[in-house]
Amino acid sequence: MATTTLPEAEVQPISKSATKYVYFFGGGKADGNGKMKDELGGKGAGLAEMTNAGLPVPPGFTIQTEACREYMRHNGVSPEVDRQMEEALAHLEQLQGQKLGKGENPLLVSVRSGAKFSMPGMMDTILNLGLNDQSVEALAKRSNKPRFAADSYRRLIQMFGNVVLEIPKSAFDEVFDAKKKHKKAKLDTDLDAKALKEVIEEYKKVVKKHTKRDFPQDPHEQLVMARDAVFRSWQNERAKHYRRINNISDDLGTAVNVQAMVYGNLGDTSGTGVGFTRNPATGAKEFYGEFLMNAQGEDVVSGVRTPVHISELHKIMPEVYDQLRDITTRLEKHYKDMQDFEFTIQEGKLYMLQTRNGKRTGLAAVKVALQMVEEGLITQEEAIFRVEPNQLYDFLVPRLNEKSGKVEVLATGLPASPGAAVGQIVFTADDAVKRAGHDRRNSVILVRAETTPEDIHGMEVAAGILTSRGGMTSHAAVVTRGMGKCCVAGAGDIQVDEKKQEMHVKGQVFKEGDWISLDGTTGRVIKGKLDTMSPKADDPELLQFMNWAEPFRKIGVRANADIPRDAIQARAFGAEGIGLCRTEHMFFEKDRIPHMQAMILADNEKNRRAALKKLLPMQRADFIGVFKAMDGFPVTIRTLDPPLHEFLPRREELMVDIAVLPYANAKEKKSLVEKYRRFGTKSAGDLKKVVPALLRRVEELHEFNPMLGHRGCRLGITYPEITEMQARAIFEAAVAVAKEGVKVFPEVMIPLTATLKETANQAAIVHRVAQEVFKEKEKKVDYLVGTMIELPRASLVADEIAKEAQFFSFGTNDLTQTTFGFSRDDVNKILPTYLAEGILKQDPFAVLDREGVGQLVKMGTERGRKTRPDLKVGICGEHGGDPSSVEFCHQIGLNYVSCSPFRVLTARLAAAQAAATDKLKVEGGRTK
Amino acid sequence: MATTTLPEAEVQPISKSATKYVYFFGGGKADGNGKMKDELGGKGAGLAEMTNAGLPVPPGFTIQTEACREYMRHNGVSPEVDRQMEEALAHLEQLQGQKLGKGENPLLVSVRSGAKFSMPGMMDTILNLGLNDQSVEALAKRSNKPRFAADSYRRLIQMFGNVVLEIPKSAFDEVFDAKKKHKKAKLDTDLDAKALKEVIEEYKKVVKKHTKRDFPQDPHEQLVMARDAVFRSWQNERAKHYRRINNISDDLGTAVNVQAMVYGNLGDTSGTGVGFTRNPATGAKEFYGEFLMNAQGEDVVSGVRTPVHISELHKIMPEVYDQLRDITTRLEKHYKDMQDFEFTIQEGKLYMLQTRNGKRTGLAAVKVALQMVEEGLITQEEAIFRVEPNQLYDFLVPRLNEKSGKVEVLATGLPASPGAAVGQIVFTADDAVKRAGHDRRNSVILVRAETTPEDIHGMEVAAGILTSRGGMTSHAAVVTRGMGKCCVAGAGDIQVDEKKQEMHVKGQVFKEGDWISLDGTTGRVIKGKLDTMSPKADDPELLQFMNWAEPFRKIGVRANADIPRDAIQARAFGAEGIGLCRTEHMFFEKDRIPHMQAMILADNEKNRRAALKKLLPMQRADFIGVFKAMDGFPVTIRTLDPPLHEFLPRREELMVDIAVLPYANAKEKKSLVEKYRRFGTKSAGDLKKVVPALLRRVEELHEFNPMLGHRGCRLGITYPEITEMQARAIFEAAVAVAKEGVKVFPEVMIPLTATLKETANQAAIVHRVAQEVFKEKEKKVDYLVGTMIELPRASLVADEIAKEAQFFSFGTNDLTQTTFGFSRDDVNKILPTYLAEGILKQDPFAVLDREGVGQLVKMGTERGRKTRPDLKVGICGEHGGDPSSVEFCHQIGLNYVSCSPFRVLTARLAAAQAAATDKLKVEGGRTK
Repeated sequence: MATTTLPEAEVQPISKSATKYVYFFGGGKADGNGKMKDELGGKGAGLAEMTNAGLPVPPGFTIQTEACREYMRHNGVSPEVDRQMEEALAHLEQLQGQKLGKGENPLLVSVRSGAKFSMPGMMDTILNLGLNDQSVEALAKRSNKPRFAADSYRRLIQMFGNVVLEIPKSAFDEVFDAKKKHKKAKLDTDLDAKALKEVIEEYKKVVKKHTKRDFPQDPHEQLVMARDAVFRSWQNERAKHYRRINNISDDLGTAVNVQAMVYGNLGDTSGTGVGFTRNPATGAKEFYGEFLMNAQGEDVVSGVRTPVHISELHKIMPEVYDQLRDITTRLEKHYKDMQDFEFTIQEGKLYMLQTRNGKRTGLAAVKVALQMVEEGLITQEEAIFRVEPNQLYDFLVPRLNEKSGKVEVLATGLPASPGAAVGQIVFTADDAVKRAGHDRRNSVILVRAETTPEDIHGMEVAAGILTSRGGMTSHAAVVTRGMGKCCVAGAGDIQVDEKKQEMHVKGQVFKEGDWISLDGTTGRVIKGKLDTMSPKADDPELLQFMNWAEPFRKIGVRANADIPRDAIQARAFGAEGIGLCRTEHMFFEKDRIPHMQAMILADNEKNRRAALKKLLPMQRADFIGVFKAMDGFPVTIRTLDPPLHEFLPRREELMVDIAVLPYANAKEKKSLVEKYRRFGTKSAGDLKKVVPALLRRVEELHEFNPMLGHRGCRLGITYPEITEMQARAIFEAAVAVAKEGVKVFPEVMIPLTATLKETANQAAIVHRVAQEVFKEKEKKVDYLVGTMIELPRASLVADEIAKEAQFFSFGTNDLTQTTFGFSRDDVNKILPTYLAEGILKQDPFAVLDREGVGQLVKMGTERGRKTRPDLKVGICGEHGGDPSSVEFCHQIGLNYVSCSPFRVLTARLAAAQAAATDKLKVEGGRTK
Repeated sequence: MATTTLPEAEVQPISKSATKYVYFFGGGKADGNGKMKDELGGKGAGLAEMTNAGLPVPPGFTIQTEACREYMRHNGVSPEVDRQMEEALAHLEQLQGQKLGKGENPLLVSVRSGAKFSMPGMMDTILNLGLNDQSVEALAKRSNKPRFAADSYRRLIQMFGNVVLEIPKSAFDEVFDAKKKHKKAKLDTDLDAKALKEVIEEYKKVVKKHTKRDFPQDPHEQLVMARDAVFRSWQNERAKHYRRINNISDDLGTAVNVQAMVYGNLGDTSGTGVGFTRNPATGAKEFYGEFLMNAQGEDVVSGVRTPVHISELHKIMPEVYDQLRDITTRLEKHYKDMQDFEFTIQEGKLYMLQTRNGKRTGLAAVKVALQMVEEGLITQEEAIFRVEPNQLYDFLVPRLNEKSGKVEVLATGLPASPGAAVGQIVFTADDAVKRAGHDRRNSVILVRAETTPEDIHGMEVAAGILTSRGGMTSHAAVVTRGMGKCCVAGAGDIQVDEKKQEMHVKGQVFKEGDWISLDGTTGRVIKGKLDTMSPKADDPELLQFMNWAEPFRKIGVRANADIPRDAIQARAFGAEGIGLCRTEHMFFEKDRIPHMQAMILADNEKNRRAALKKLLPMQRADFIGVFKAMDGFPVTIRTLDPPLHEFLPRREELMVDIAVLPYANAKEKKSLVEKYRRFGTKSAGDLKKVVPALLRRVEELHEFNPMLGHRGCRLGITYPEITEMQARAIFEAAVAVAKEGVKVFPEVMIPLTATLKETANQAAIVHRVAQEVFKEKEKKVDYLVGTMIELPRASLVADEIAKEAQFFSFGTNDLTQTTFGFSRDDVNKILPTYLAEGILKQDPFAVLDREGVGQLVKMGTERGRKTRPDLKVGICGEHGGDPSSVEFCHQIGLNYVSCSPFRVLTARLAAAQAAATDKLKVEGGRTK
């Protein structure tokens, strides 16, 4: 091939002096290469690499970082830099057959900064450098587009004026806005060539006024000034600040990239397009892309003109098409991955503007990885890195078929739990149950301002959940992810009127029974009823891929599952045990909550014990189911954790009911009697006594900060009979299934400990009850008693706690809350600003904060094992299913991670990748 | 003196064998001494020390810990232990002229365990050992008290049976209760000698039944069995568990103490009493005590008989009186401190049962310390340790004069803020202001379920505060301590009906205007009106004492003060600057809160800025006052910290008002219009719009866990204009006073940072505004920008944060909350159980938790100084005024502590003591 490359002989070394300041790239060969980031910066090294790979990239040169360092030391560069730059420019002009800003076909260039590390705050880009009063005319003539030429020149003056000459941007904006107003133009594009020429004249006046001199007409002067401005921008306040807080040395300096401009809109032999080397949706091996002739890149993406399928290019310019196919095929081979590329054809000549590894769906990622191993492009080891662990989700959830109907997006919330759901709106959990009907015959979407534990029965039957409040770790988000059910959370544009049972959005009102479709993978809420496409969890390609990955994995993967159904699901996805079984979730079931409430409302231990006795057989039955599902694997059961008021009616609701009671009519009273029947109202007369009494107890239990309140082991310590009952249910269940031949390994986990003595207090109860049950039933089982480490203090004194705890499980949700001082339920008020301002790089509830929270996890593990070298340590927060967090857990030597069932595949792959990375490192140098 | 000691020649070494197992004490001399805790345990060493000091303590002997270790190794002791014990017993019998459990005057002994460290869980005490069927008759005859003798024997069998023979306590209780029932006896003491003899016979049957043998009648056998039971108790589960979690080696073993019993109720020449060598209330040098003839110790304390002043003893038994005075004078000299002693006279012979350094008031502590230096008993350096820093509080607050009226205690709450207050009850802050009247003419007590920031104006005028809910660090407690005002918090027996304006307690109803008296030092709530006694902050003895202490101090002491008045107070107590000036407290003032509310309710930045502009001059004026009060000293000002909803009406209140609005009559509507006038209600018609709109904003701001929510620097980051306004007020004030010649050192403190970038974000605003103000006003002042370290993450990444922060101040209140996961406002639900169960030794909000939170303070300091070696580090939580916490801050090298003004004296002394302790350690061996 190589129709676009020049014969090798024409590529000359630019200079023979001691210091090489300028690195040329172009004509199929570059002075530098992809590894020279120290000298060329990230961008310059990339341009060199692409050129060396035989890509027809617009040629140019990189002025290396040493020149910047010189500039800082001496407030200017040595003549040698200027000399080498002129030499490189001459070489570029020769290669292009053009002169910078001169002649009928002037060479125009872009000037960009490019440091070793990507760094905001520095000068970005100057385009169209080389334009002046003469060359703009040449460009207009050559392109036959006077408006395009004028607009390019106008932009150059504005950018150059602002970033090189340091004229306030507002000075140019004022001129431009005044012109638009005067011409009654709505859009920038409404200004024609004549108007733009007037703008240019006024821009030049602005330059003169601010700098006391004319806009430089000499292209070479423009280039020197732009280069020096890039060097100076390394030292500006924002850049220095950014480096300081990101630990980047001030001494590195930046490189400068100068590259020939190319235009796709110079006529019918010009054009531009984008494409993929394989189908990014399915992974099929087919050439895939779109283009437009006589157009700029923004025309393709803006949607003003409709792009054409890439196969059409073959008809228009068969040679260019063949060249493009040939190049992209070679690109795939060079980068050993599917490529996403951009190209421009300038007057019949093809230029590659960008190529990068292409984004793809999970389905495509697995297929491409398998194909490429088959094609001999990559090894099996390399293949396992070709799928992002999170992408495996695509195999587990249904997707919306967007071709099945009109896609009218009503609102976009947080993609809280992926998948798709289509159903009829309901506003209460009870209505969800009613409308879903027997066997969940009807598909419903539960729409709430936010969900609470009392909504669980409705969430279980709903196809999907939509909330107007709450973040990625809100109740709705966490619970649905656990269920593998689609959820869009915190869709702020939606108002939910729970009283009227209406959803308001975009001026439209939706009522119970109206159809909506949710896309939990993107967070979109879509009006009406689309079709869904089924998940492919048993896809044979997926299974083969996992078979390659699994042998690497060193860290265990368990699941968080509270009920037998989830446990069975988790096993199917490959979970090697339960890392977190939350016993309280069992109590929110409709047949149980009355007993739970009776227990809480009991005013003495005796009545409390009586209520607990009724819960005992129910808990036991649940545990029997979970143990059976996990035959042969450990099951970690956490004792009661949430504050008790979560099980009672809400305080403000009671207050309002009491306030309006004196005014209630018979019908309203009857409804209140119904509402409070299970608390003892039989007739309207009881309301006056029962509801205020209930409020008194709720007030007693009321907490300002429930997350930091009377919960976790604090409940078991103040009400030891609760721990006793739960321990009894666990061991009675364990003994019962063991007698049936099930291999059972219960691990009893004490939540929210901060001190050794809390652990000791609760462990003593568990051990005592275990011995009692074993004696009564004449059968023993092996078991462990351990603790959750979810408070900073627990990590700090982990050596102490390990004296009593036989295992640790890091509850990183709570640990993140207390380490950061962020309430998970409230953080959505802060997080958007924090992410936008760059204060946080990611949501610490989604990705484990290694710097802070991670320190505590590492410290807790090390200290715990100092006391108990064989201490089993795991993690059971939401992070257990996040790939980066799994990698961290692998690195610090945890025994296992535990995540929601639908995250098990992701965690398994993430763990395998982390271990494979170690292996590759040991084997030396092979990169992923 | 020495009428009670035998000639020295009679004291013989007990054994000459290689290992000395048994140490005798008695007759004025002991084999051991106070330093031999390893061998004799704490108790045994103390008995030896007292004996050596010439005290007539009942004689006896200690079997040392090696015997216990032998017992553990061989499951029994060597014959040599038995031999030495018999030898010591013979010596004891000879000294006493009695035989163990034999003859007309049988020797009876107590047997007690005594390990090196005080250790619950082990066998405690067996009294009256030596009694049997014969000696009980002798005792009855000799004492002429058959009931006393029988009861002593009964107790022996019961104790011995339970702890030595391991018979369940219930077995004896059943017998005893049955007898009481049968005899229709209400109290144990209602059983006469005959009944008790019947009990003894049945107890013996219980022993026979459980052990298959009779209760041992041989006193020597009793002794051996009791000794071995003590040894075995070292190995019981509770003791092992205690040692494990307290890091006490299992190898230490325990000693056993055998001591002659003495009785003060053997007739008219016997008696018992307690006393002090000086007056514990005033410190006056006078012999002070009470006694009863023919009585046991419990008679003196039970109040059944009224004890007699010690001077009466001189009339009854002049020789014993002289001996007691002589002994106690010598005791004072020996221990170099005021003594609190117990004595028994058995048939004319004086025995000292206990002596210890006496508890005393702060006034007495200072006076005694000065006296003892004058008397040459102690040095000035020693004297400064004779006052507990907390005791200095006694000089700063009024006290109740309990002789001024009847003391009827209605309830006892937490001693939340010491001092005394007497006044008329009010139930709302507004009523407090009304009833207190101009210049606070009338004394009022504000009684609330709990206080909120909106009550501040009422708290300021009240003489004292009483709450039925909340702990030592509740809002009421913290604010009143800051004000130096008496507060009793969390008096759970009191019900406050805020609607009816009634206080219910002990079946009594109190209304507005009723008088009560509060004792904030003890937590008592007293009915009616007592007189108070004035504080003595300028007491010359106090000043002299502080002059001795101050030169030692190395760590600075600042005060937390928000308003000029508090700052002036703090300077008067010796504060060297302000460590925490909370700007939000300024916003709760009545004339400011409307602007604050307008700022919060603003729906855009422009309106927010307009409201902030109105707050600016008010803040500036406050700062001017504070800067002037602190002329020459630094003032640390914290930017806005609390969540914004604290400034708005409560959510549930709004919900109720909205719910009842449709039913409200004209009068009620008028009252609602008044209530919401400042939010824009002018007539009843406005209510329907204004109140729901207000609720909507409150709902938007509502948080599940406000403590972990949108507060601290998170406010300044989301609303940078707030930080701007505050920085402007600070620097405009600083420049203004500097122009008047005031030396001003503002330190701007950013709260609740968890990351470097938060600090950088806010510091950038402060620095920018500072430069603006300096330029505008043409005057510069020195200033610092630093951060509070109050989240675990901030300590963990303190090296990062120190890149931007010029100082650190540990906010240990919040740091304790997040490290422990304890909400300060809710912890009272948990803390009582935790303290009772020994899970926590003290309230971590009162005394800094060195093990957990302290680790983070130390870590944060070290890491911060790694980045910035001259980093100024302080602490400004409640702990800044707690002596133990101040000591810790001294030890880890903080620069200063900051506490409420009324804690400054305490902190100064605590800091001096900590430094003096270092000095004494360096100088070697001198103890305090």
